[in-house]
Amino acid sequence: MTRPISKPEPPPNFSLREIAMIVGGEVIGDEQVRIRGINSLELAERGEISFLTNSRFKESLAATSATAVILQQQTPLFRGPQVIVSNPRISHARLAAVFAPDVPRFPGVSDRSFCHESCLLGKNVSVYPNVYIEEGAVIGEETVLFPGVYIGGGVRIGNRAVIYPNVAILRDCRIGNDVIIHAGTVIGSDGFGFVRDGAQSIKIPQLGIVQIDDRVEIGANNCIDRAAFGRTWIRSGVKTDNLVQIAHNVTIGEDTVIVAQVGISGSVRVGRQVVLGGQVGIADHLEVGDGVMIASQSGVAKSIAPGQVVSGTPTMPHRLWLRVSGLLTRLPEYNTRLRSLEKRVKELEETDEE
Amino acid sequence: MTRPISKPEPPPNFSLREIAMIVGGEVIGDEQVRIRGINSLELAERGEISFLTNSRFKESLAATSATAVILQQQTPLFRGPQVIVSNPRISHARLAAVFAPDVPRFPGVSDRSFCHESCLLGKNVSVYPNVYIEEGAVIGEETVLFPGVYIGGGVRIGNRAVIYPNVAILRDCRIGNDVIIHAGTVIGSDGFGFVRDGAQSIKIPQLGIVQIDDRVEIGANNCIDRAAFGRTWIRSGVKTDNLVQIAHNVTIGEDTVIVAQVGISGSVRVGRQVVLGGQVGIADHLEVGDGVMIASQSGVAKSIAPGQVVSGTPTMPHRLWLRVSGLLTRLPEYNTRLRSLEKRVKELEETDEE
Amino acid sequence: MTRPISKPEPPPNFSLREIAMIVGGEVIGDEQVRIRGINSLELAERGEISFLTNSRFKESLAATSATAVILQQQTPLFRGPQVIVSNPRISHARLAAVFAPDVPRFPGVSDRSFCHESCLLGKNVSVYPNVYIEEGAVIGEETVLFPGVYIGGGVRIGNRAVIYPNVAILRDCRIGNDVIIHAGTVIGSDGFGFVRDGAQSIKIPQLGIVQIDDRVEIGANNCIDRAAFGRTWIRSGVKTDNLVQIAHNVTIGEDTVIVAQVGISGSVRVGRQVVLGGQVGIADHLEVGDGVMIASQSGVAKSIAPGQVVSGTPTMPHRLWLRVSGLLTRLPEYNTRLRSLEKRVKELEETDEE
Repeated sequence: MTRPISKPEPPPNFSLREIAMIVGGEVIGDEQVRIRGINSLELAERGEISFLTNSRFKESLAATSATAVILQQQTPLFRGPQVIVSNPRISHARLAAVFAPDVPRFPGVSDRSFCHESCLLGKNVSVYPNVYIEEGAVIGEETVLFPGVYIGGGVRIGNRAVIYPNVAILRDCRIGNDVIIHAGTVIGSDGFGFVRDGAQSIKIPQLGIVQIDDRVEIGANNCIDRAAFGRTWIRSGVKTDNLVQIAHNVTIGEDTVIVAQVGISGSVRVGRQVVLGGQVGIADHLEVGDGVMIASQSGVAKSIAPGQVVSGTPTMPHRLWLRVSGLLTRLPEYNTRLRSLEKRVKELEETDEE
Repeated sequence: MTRPISKPEPPPNFSLREIAMIVGGEVIGDEQVRIRGINSLELAERGEISFLTNSRFKESLAATSATAVILQQQTPLFRGPQVIVSNPRISHARLAAVFAPDVPRFPGVSDRSFCHESCLLGKNVSVYPNVYIEEGAVIGEETVLFPGVYIGGGVRIGNRAVIYPNVAILRDCRIGNDVIIHAGTVIGSDGFGFVRDGAQSIKIPQLGIVQIDDRVEIGANNCIDRAAFGRTWIRSGVKTDNLVQIAHNVTIGEDTVIVAQVGISGSVRVGRQVVLGGQVGIADHLEVGDGVMIASQSGVAKSIAPGQVVSGTPTMPHRLWLRVSGLLTRLPEYNTRLRSLEKRVKELEETDEE
Repeated sequence: MTRPISKPEPPPNFSLREIAMIVGGEVIGDEQVRIRGINSLELAERGEISFLTNSRFKESLAATSATAVILQQQTPLFRGPQVIVSNPRISHARLAAVFAPDVPRFPGVSDRSFCHESCLLGKNVSVYPNVYIEEGAVIGEETVLFPGVYIGGGVRIGNRAVIYPNVAILRDCRIGNDVIIHAGTVIGSDGFGFVRDGAQSIKIPQLGIVQIDDRVEIGANNCIDRAAFGRTWIRSGVKTDNLVQIAHNVTIGEDTVIVAQVGISGSVRVGRQVVLGGQVGIADHLEVGDGVMIASQSGVAKSIAPGQVVSGTPTMPHRLWLRVSGLLTRLPEYNTRLRSLEKRVKELEETDEE
């Protein structure tokens, strides 16, 4: 089965003056140069704009082939036109959005998708071939479901969501507006609940759901389990990287950022604007306060008060961890020094006894 | 393509007397109240039953809106009818099973699935659209294959198995009865076997299979690799959480429980009724004895005798780990104390020399 | 929908003389015995050949039922014919390839696949049902796309690639020749790039691609993110195990080997012929030199010079880590010894003062 070739739109192309309006900046130099893309200082070619977000990379300004650059302060290191902004990182995000290709959209609902007749599909949904939508699901306006997506019975997805290939969202889960879920992720698999009966593990059926609020972005191959009762709750603005595990009944507060391969055990409550570094593990039923930062690979075995910056296994204040981890390599030396001291003290004691 | 709307069954609804019979308990209070669901103490509403499994949550008994509760001993904290049982956790599991929605079943074999004509399908199998079943596969009675499932050539799956969306089970693997495999899991990908030939890695084709015995439950996005020769073997009753990695030729003993993000290297033998905490890593060719418990994030570099409880990297007895990890933060202090001691001993020595 | 049963080919079957020619070895004993398979010493049956790669397993030679064995030096422990080779591991790899079943190939392009009419498909491609290929993709000769594979717009895949079920390769990514990608892997999901604007995280659209060079093998359920600009680059001969995370703009050098559950943060540059043990984490923007070996679970927080062998969190030379980790369990003892020394020194000081 084939689809006709779409007429390619001409690539976007702006004057530097227009660029400056988009990012709210001020042009120094020729406002009329045309900009057809954005790139890093190293990779930029003629016709592209670049940006300086970190003074570490200042040397690249002299070497770049970019036609214009965005930065916080005018610099003599770059000879072309400059756009001065208060936050070049935000300008980068905005301009990249302008030049990024649109998310491709299958036109309408493919007749090679499978959609239960009880489903409600909003205006302008894009449902690719090989999508399966179970009984009673509701899909909001403008939402895109890529091939291989499975939507379970009673699932509700908001408007303008993008659900990438082979994502499974199981029965009754709730997904908000403007949510992005990357490929291979599983939302609403059963929480890991068993009770021992002699040697055997008896399954505890998981009766709750997963609720994902607005503007959440979930990485690829994540697993977010449904609650035993009630909901596993990912609140608005949360961003997760790839291969993240979120167990049943966890709550993640607004605008928290979770780096790849983090594992969060059952019933943990993570606050707002928390940052969890890669491969962090958090034991069950703990609380992680608002604004906490936990360094990569840390093992969290007790709750953490708001605002703390912690590292290590078990976690300790980050500054202490830096000292402790630096001293670890000196353990062999300590051993030697202790032995030497013991010998010397013994000699002193013997001298004293004489 | 659409499917007709199914007539919803009325939700289950029992008298408390019937509930007591299901869980083998004794009612104190009104046996005739109707129960239409089970929930946690915090979330329960009128008409629902709840349960107390941990005396930590005793306060919730007074506040709950549940119509009845299940517990081990009668309590004055809850004023409604009570069901007394010997193990409220097991009662929870049983009642949740009663009230849980059935696994949805596509009626029969979808003509939008792809099933090689040599396959044998048992009675009452449910094969959703977008399932692919390769040559010579055998699927047992009552088994459900959700959309996006791939069944390789010669695979055998037992009765009453539930294979969730986008699971891949590759050629010749064996899956037992009453097995559940959650979404996105890969069974039978090639073991990671290479041999260096100069700079290059030459692939060692993996000729074995994965065998999963009865009553196993595998979490979402797991990877269980086929053996180099023979089988990677997950024995009956094993439960794995999400994102678990099990390498080629591993054997996992009966009723072992493996928490999320564990990684088990090649040819490891894990015993029966072992518990592996989240993010544990086990090096290749080791043995983990029956009944061992390994705490989260531990790094196992040597074999562990049966019955041990261990933690840390490298692993040590759990009680020792608690002491060691508590002392880690005192390394800076030790450093200071050592230096102070060295100075004082030097002074003593100089005094003595005088 | 069904496919006809294929006529099974007779299993391969060789004289020991032919086997010896395949592996470049010398036969001692009967060259005419027939060999129909390869297996481990423990599992081999009559008619199969086995091999000894590690003198640890020498005892198995006496007990094996194999018809012949491959080894480096003639041994009296095995009474049947022997094939003497310089590297039995390489011989194992070669013979396993001879006896391994071929990758199954759907004949041609399934009319139940979805292929945009602008795509270019090479000779003898095998496109299974439920594959989706987006606009402008190019698939090389002999390449196999298993069910559930998603190929994004503009993706280019080389010749003889094998893409297992439910792999997603997103727009514009480049895959070389002879690449194998195991099931469930996601190539080209968005890099994890956000910029804080007050409390909220603003998405930085990721404009780059993933480039995977020739002879790379990627394990199951990996995630390899597209670059912010330019490319995330997996160079030729790299092998990754399962559940590996590779962030945006990472470069992995030729013939590097990455064990399961490794996480590599943004912009890291890993050299050639590096070995990363299981569950290793590497912080962003670091360099790992050629030939480095990093032990399992290590946490890499600073760059590592070529040729180093390191372990631990933070990483240190492997030999030092062995000593340090051995001494960790003695921290409680150090504590006691320090306290005892302090008491004894105090007594000495008091004696001196008298």
